[in-house]
Amino acid sequence: MELLTEIRVMQQVAHEPRAAGRTIALVPTMGFFHEGHLSLMRLGRARGDLLVVSLFVNPTQFGPGEDFKEYPRDLDRDLRLAAEVGVDLIFEPSVEAMYPPGFQTFVTVEEVTRGLCGAARPGHFRGVATVVAKLFHIVKPHVAIFGEKDYQQLVTIRRMVRDLNLDIEVVGHPIVREPDGLALSSRNLYLSPAERVSARSLSQALERAKALYRAGERQAAVLAAEARGVIEAQPHTRVDYVAVCDRETLEPLDEVKEGAVVALAVFVGRARLIDNCLLP
Amino acid sequence: MELLTEIRVMQQVAHEPRAAGRTIALVPTMGFFHEGHLSLMRLGRARGDLLVVSLFVNPTQFGPGEDFKEYPRDLDRDLRLAAEVGVDLIFEPSVEAMYPPGFQTFVTVEEVTRGLCGAARPGHFRGVATVVAKLFHIVKPHVAIFGEKDYQQLVTIRRMVRDLNLDIEVVGHPIVREPDGLALSSRNLYLSPAERVSARSLSQALERAKALYRAGERQAAVLAAEARGVIEAQPHTRVDYVAVCDRETLEPLDEVKEGAVVALAVFVGRARLIDNCLLP
Repeated sequence: MELLTEIRVMQQVAHEPRAAGRTIALVPTMGFFHEGHLSLMRLGRARGDLLVVSLFVNPTQFGPGEDFKEYPRDLDRDLRLAAEVGVDLIFEPSVEAMYPPGFQTFVTVEEVTRGLCGAARPGHFRGVATVVAKLFHIVKPHVAIFGEKDYQQLVTIRRMVRDLNLDIEVVGHPIVREPDGLALSSRNLYLSPAERVSARSLSQALERAKALYRAGERQAAVLAAEARGVIEAQPHTRVDYVAVCDRETLEPLDEVKEGAVVALAVFVGRARLIDNCLLP
Repeated sequence: MELLTEIRVMQQVAHEPRAAGRTIALVPTMGFFHEGHLSLMRLGRARGDLLVVSLFVNPTQFGPGEDFKEYPRDLDRDLRLAAEVGVDLIFEPSVEAMYPPGFQTFVTVEEVTRGLCGAARPGHFRGVATVVAKLFHIVKPHVAIFGEKDYQQLVTIRRMVRDLNLDIEVVGHPIVREPDGLALSSRNLYLSPAERVSARSLSQALERAKALYRAGERQAAVLAAEARGVIEAQPHTRVDYVAVCDRETLEPLDEVKEGAVVALAVFVGRARLIDNCLLP
């Protein structure tokens, strides 16, 4: 496995496999790998002849007062885990190289980033879209793999790729969960033991909404309120949102007719956790 | 010469020469070719193994009340002229294909688009940056050629390419002028004979600023005022701006120390014309 940090070198390295007709798969990450990341990499391994994992904690997607500085990092461990999964190349640029003095260009995806996490984290998805566009131009992948846990991010990237005509296939990977249902996240690290127990309520809330839906409930307000109740019954939780939305536009629904996504964001202690599920 | 209108087909066509190590040169245009466009194409012919000219009157870079609808168009003539210059491929997509329903992604370059034409035409450079990013993703050029007449546009594109790590060389081509100095523009078509006479004052104003600069004048306000005076002495003219700016950041200068660009925009009758020159 190779470790590259220079943007120019990464761009040159990408030329050869492309010219030779070999497929480049990219898994963009912020590092501190857990089984969720490793699953994305295994899918990338299956989809690409050359598997590139980018590792970059992107400052422009963190708001003021958010956890950019304390976001967990462990490069040595990440390199070891990635090598075990069969990653060919880790791209780990510096913040200074990605955002040199005079940097002033941003990619904005409008409607789909307005609600949900976009409402609570202004500028977050602008930072995400911009850094992913940059990574796409640097790594030049044929296929890029994103986790479905960050559902709004996945919708945003798909929309950007379509709107800007990026010749890249975006593949979503199902959420990877702990045995008790908690979606894997680097931010689970912030949870105290008691908060960790309460955090189970996020996936339980989604299960509750799914069960109601299967039983015939179609009113979004009812599904959301029931899910919210499951979370609020637990200590240490503060719901940011529980929403039932169109799967593609992310517009809030009144009634679920042709499927939906139930998405939620909850502070558990100081950790802001997100989760979601699809209603078929 | 081939004419392509389908985005997907254009992307596929671009694969082969890239894989074979052949250089793709792109000249993005809004059509209605004059000698300025043809000069860009000749430079593109020299720089690329495959020369692609895109022809798209981009609605998102026109403001409300601007001349999108009456912007001159003549595809048959354009095809003939391009073929004569040795263009390999014309890419002429429809507005509907470029901006399908649900389109919502924009590229914004911030500081360099604030002043000059950006101040008078809000949204214009967002439209330009977005469509050029799209064209870059569709045509996949190694080299892209832009005229220096649209100086702020050239600076914006260079900045976008650098900030978003597009692996594309941006080449500027010197302004092509009529024998009496008027910079070539499709919008010169809007001029009445009397206005056409007055329009000479734009390049004369730049010559005046250059002469003063050569004679030792370094105060931006003096250079701009003298240039403005040349234009305002002519009937049918209404100056939007005459500015002396840093060549890269486009920030207005008080004193010219290490070179500058003198840029101006003037309504002559209903035509909004621009021109510029560099002070070395």
